[in-house]
Amino acid sequence: MEFSSKLLENAVHEIAQLPGIGKRTALRLALHLLKQPEEHVHELASSIVRLREKVIFCKQCHNLSDMPLCEICASPKRNHSLLCVVEDIRDVMAIENTSQYHGLYHVLGGVISPMEGVGPQDLTIPSLLEKVKLGGVSEIIFALSATMESDTTNYYIYKQLESFGIKTSTIARGIPVGDELEYTDQITLGRSLLARIPFEASLSKS
Amino acid sequence: MEFSSKLLENAVHEIAQLPGIGKRTALRLALHLLKQPEEHVHELASSIVRLREKVIFCKQCHNLSDMPLCEICASPKRNHSLLCVVEDIRDVMAIENTSQYHGLYHVLGGVISPMEGVGPQDLTIPSLLEKVKLGGVSEIIFALSATMESDTTNYYIYKQLESFGIKTSTIARGIPVGDELEYTDQITLGRSLLARIPFEASLSKS
Repeated sequence: MEFSSKLLENAVHEIAQLPGIGKRTALRLALHLLKQPEEHVHELASSIVRLREKVIFCKQCHNLSDMPLCEICASPKRNHSLLCVVEDIRDVMAIENTSQYHGLYHVLGGVISPMEGVGPQDLTIPSLLEKVKLGGVSEIIFALSATMESDTTNYYIYKQLESFGIKTSTIARGIPVGDELEYTDQITLGRSLLARIPFEASLSKS
Repeated sequence: MEFSSKLLENAVHEIAQLPGIGKRTALRLALHLLKQPEEHVHELASSIVRLREKVIFCKQCHNLSDMPLCEICASPKRNHSLLCVVEDIRDVMAIENTSQYHGLYHVLGGVISPMEGVGPQDLTIPSLLEKVKLGGVSEIIFALSATMESDTTNYYIYKQLESFGIKTSTIARGIPVGDELEYTDQITLGRSLLARIPFEASLSKS
């Protein structure tokens, strides 16, 4: 692309480094910003700088937070003996949106992936074990995605926790609500048969 | 969405105001920025602020520029008696990429659109007429899109220029290179028949 302005070229180059944004989209965004009031552009710029500079991780659950202890960990209304292990902060947001969970979280920051060189020490697994060692945790719920790496991570943590005799569970795999049986893949269908629950229980859960 | 951090919520809110970027994409971008080195985020932020604050319009062709006169208008290598009228700066970039044009441009900044309340005075049409009045322009090429608004704009400018007895032309509408005849819409095909050129001319142009 031929740019008539170095400033424009520079802005397009910077915006195009964002994931999923190509040169064309970056140009469109840059031209859009040019038409906006100057204070809007300042707000956008300062919001991302402040985010990068000021945001911290909750020292207890490793969720993004503005304070050393996040709102969830600091809340007296939550069940502090229940711990839900998730991959990243988007999963916390997804679970919070269900309003079905009232315990605390533990954000791993990823999953064990030898292919990408991510081992247990690169995640917050040591901090999780430390937390369990200190006591006060009665149950750990694994809420990772249904991938091979996640299963490996689940199993690794499960093995590490075995000696503590703590109750562990994993979120149910099964047919999504609203899906048709015939279109469900066979692994999910097989798992949902193995993990069947008493009919009365399904009634009380809906 | 439930955010654990006000800073994150604010950044996502600001990013999601960009056109074509929803809340989910904004969150993905914000989390991506969090993982980047601090100086990268500073560069992105300052590049858009500098763009908004510093970029100006060329006083002659109204293209985006870092200086009062853009590189194209200032170049002695260009044919200063040829003027190509385009809708916006992206069209200048598209034509420059062809390397087939060596005249100057005139960026209208839009097209006449009564539906959206855009009249001739909202565009740079008065400046174009002024330029023609001053003399030195031998031909004006209309290179607007093939929409109804563009045709109206073309015609309006054409009418205004009539009294100056200046040569005007419009870029050819026809079958795109590489397209098959049978899939071309009838209006384009009809126009390409009416605007047929001598066979020898088509040879010299390729």
